[in-house]
Amino acid sequence: MKEKRNNISFFFNPKAIAIIGASPTPGKLSSVILESLNRIGFSGSIYPVNPKYTSINDLKCYGSIHEIKNDIDIAVIALPSQSVLETLKDMAKTTPYPPFLRGNKVKGAIIVSAGFKETGENGRKLEGEIKGIVEKFGIRVMGPNCMGIYDTISKVDTFFVPKDRVGRPVRGGISIVSQSGSFAATIMDELALEGIGVSRVISYGNGADVDESDCLEFLKDDEATNAIALYIESVNDGRRFVEAAFRCTRKKPVVAVKVGRRDAGVNAARSHTGAMTGRYEIYRAAFKKAGVTEIDGYEGLKDACRIFNVYGLIKGKKVLIITDGGGIGVRIADACENSGLEVAGITEAARNRLTSRLPSFCAVGNPIDLTGSVTDEDYLTALEEGLKDGFDIAIMTVLWGPPQLTEGLVEKLKKTMKRYNTPIIVCSPGGEFTKMMGRIFGEKGIPVFSSPESAVRAAAILTGKRI
Amino acid sequence: MKEKRNNISFFFNPKAIAIIGASPTPGKLSSVILESLNRIGFSGSIYPVNPKYTSINDLKCYGSIHEIKNDIDIAVIALPSQSVLETLKDMAKTTPYPPFLRGNKVKGAIIVSAGFKETGENGRKLEGEIKGIVEKFGIRVMGPNCMGIYDTISKVDTFFVPKDRVGRPVRGGISIVSQSGSFAATIMDELALEGIGVSRVISYGNGADVDESDCLEFLKDDEATNAIALYIESVNDGRRFVEAAFRCTRKKPVVAVKVGRRDAGVNAARSHTGAMTGRYEIYRAAFKKAGVTEIDGYEGLKDACRIFNVYGLIKGKKVLIITDGGGIGVRIADACENSGLEVAGITEAARNRLTSRLPSFCAVGNPIDLTGSVTDEDYLTALEEGLKDGFDIAIMTVLWGPPQLTEGLVEKLKKTMKRYNTPIIVCSPGGEFTKMMGRIFGEKGIPVFSSPESAVRAAAILTGKRI
Repeated sequence: MKEKRNNISFFFNPKAIAIIGASPTPGKLSSVILESLNRIGFSGSIYPVNPKYTSINDLKCYGSIHEIKNDIDIAVIALPSQSVLETLKDMAKTTPYPPFLRGNKVKGAIIVSAGFKETGENGRKLEGEIKGIVEKFGIRVMGPNCMGIYDTISKVDTFFVPKDRVGRPVRGGISIVSQSGSFAATIMDELALEGIGVSRVISYGNGADVDESDCLEFLKDDEATNAIALYIESVNDGRRFVEAAFRCTRKKPVVAVKVGRRDAGVNAARSHTGAMTGRYEIYRAAFKKAGVTEIDGYEGLKDACRIFNVYGLIKGKKVLIITDGGGIGVRIADACENSGLEVAGITEAARNRLTSRLPSFCAVGNPIDLTGSVTDEDYLTALEEGLKDGFDIAIMTVLWGPPQLTEGLVEKLKKTMKRYNTPIIVCSPGGEFTKMMGRIFGEKGIPVFSSPESAVRAAAILTGKRI
Repeated sequence: MKEKRNNISFFFNPKAIAIIGASPTPGKLSSVILESLNRIGFSGSIYPVNPKYTSINDLKCYGSIHEIKNDIDIAVIALPSQSVLETLKDMAKTTPYPPFLRGNKVKGAIIVSAGFKETGENGRKLEGEIKGIVEKFGIRVMGPNCMGIYDTISKVDTFFVPKDRVGRPVRGGISIVSQSGSFAATIMDELALEGIGVSRVISYGNGADVDESDCLEFLKDDEATNAIALYIESVNDGRRFVEAAFRCTRKKPVVAVKVGRRDAGVNAARSHTGAMTGRYEIYRAAFKKAGVTEIDGYEGLKDACRIFNVYGLIKGKKVLIITDGGGIGVRIADACENSGLEVAGITEAARNRLTSRLPSFCAVGNPIDLTGSVTDEDYLTALEEGLKDGFDIAIMTVLWGPPQLTEGLVEKLKKTMKRYNTPIIVCSPGGEFTKMMGRIFGEKGIPVFSSPESAVRAAAILTGKRI
């Protein structure tokens, strides 16, 4: 059983994908999926299946899955919920158990259709029957009520939201596992705009079969994944989750946001993915036991995606703060203390070095306030002399008001950062010019956050502390 | 004395502004200020003063303030700190006390120069002498170490950051009072990008004379100001602050962020504006007593500016949540409960009305989850039927993935909102398309927030609760 439960890797390396309920009508879910697979450049075979058509977008369309000669790794089922069961059973029968040994026609299905346990008693029953089919025939099922997979490595995209509405991020190192499709899609969209990459994004919806634990088991050994971000409403098997997560966190950072905490959220989650969320405290304990960093909400999860795409966990929590705007520096110091980060003073030696090398108007301490008369060189001096004191991370506010600051700063920063092997987080709140500079920094590998709070959240996440 | 202390209104209705230390050199502080005053369209007289020049940018340049025949409302002093005192004294002597009775040449000065109490003992002494001049001659002083005034009503802009680096917001109803210039400038820059307006922005720096209490006294009666956002490191006179703030909050909402809370922040504030921040708990008590809503940090203050530009305080705290993405809806429900907002269930009657009018795939409750198959009409139905239950505010997540959603939604929403006289906050996290739609909504007067957390913060701020 364990082998069966854990092996979902074929979802992330498919050679053939069938789309059940394919349609040429623009805007239909299945049509968007077909488009997405083409656009992302899936290099395997795509088989549209729908008895109504003989071809869709120049691809031969099949009357049923049985007409396809080759094996199918993923059958995407985009049908009304009442037709899903029959179709799944029909394809599952072709898959003798255990599929990996005897060969199989359809290894796995992604059921994007809604209308299951999230809708009440009837839907719950339907979903139970899906589970029965999985148990009986060994086919693996992702969903129902999910968006499926966006994978920059195997170039698969079953997210049925058009790209002109929801952007797709480039290749990166973070994988996202989410019970909520919209949560995953929205974060993808934001990361895409900022030029930040992802590895695999998995929206598993109601989790009738494939669940967060399966995903963790796969991602643990996935070389394309440096860190994992989880969105969880509920966990089916707590013990299994803790074990899978624990194995994972030995190898790479895992962060999680748990939603559906108190009454209102719990009720909301039930009618979303049919999740029985259970007591929040139990989740907190489970995360702690498994070494998973708990994150508070959407903003935090997004920050985690951004920071883990660039840096790994850090050992200590000593923060050096450098700023050209005093107020933002003070706010960062406050927020650091609130988040359990240490803003220790600098040594007398560092103070002397800084005072002798920086202009007299600078306030030397921690923060080091370079003021609005700052130059690129001042930032480097502050960073270099400051880091000699052995800080674990530097948060550097760069407000772009001072006209003498240039984008040349980024390359110089990178050099200094490498020399001291200490991560730098840039905090640059602001408007148009600032966002343009932020993108340049981001592209060159220095992560930029647009508020003191998010910069500090990102630093705290790197320490592995709950935020 | 009280009359003197309180009357700073001439700063916000000047007919003549002198720039002491004016320079034609692009990039110099005084040069940026001259540019800014021209750009914003200040309609009064501008007098550059610098013995080195006879004209600057086609304006006659004066050798000293005494050569100017007319009275001056504001003299902006942009000189090195060691020259400030002499200059101030020189112009203050022309101002017999009390200035409002006997007539005066220079009513007030804005000292943008740094190098005072924020730099240590010598600077503290210099600043003491500024106070002495104020006491003796009755001239009013804003600063030193400040950016001065950005005023969309009287069209004054002394912020010495170039507009291509830091945007300037349009006219709006929120006034910002900030000890930190960079904090104020950065928020202005962000609001400008989002098309959100401000009334007056005051950066008073070290507050040698004009302080937060003076500003509150003025803004209390200022018809152009609907609400006030404060950034505070320290307050000079606690009793006076509480009284001024109390009088203010009787008339309009006041929110405040207090920075410099614990050790690190306290130290940072001292070397920023020389502020002795004092115990944070005292500030919290003072805010409470004065009816000031305390806000936690930069993000919160920005959210407050955005929401108070559109809505006033609300009486209750019952929130209706509508969403087309289940996960974001659940997260909002969680965050509402965390912030003391009420996410009560809907009545049986409302449930029946909603169920009969909405498609069967919708989950009816609070949140109302319209799912990814949502249409514009579904949003209106949900809002209309939901609001009949008497909610105080609606938070509506609009994820723009569903291709059938159109920008036409905004006009329809506005109509429904007016009919029920209930504020609507839209939560639209996402990328390029989403941000474009957000701007359209914003321009039409429906505020849009880009994360569940910020939308809930904004709603909580409207209840007047500390967040």
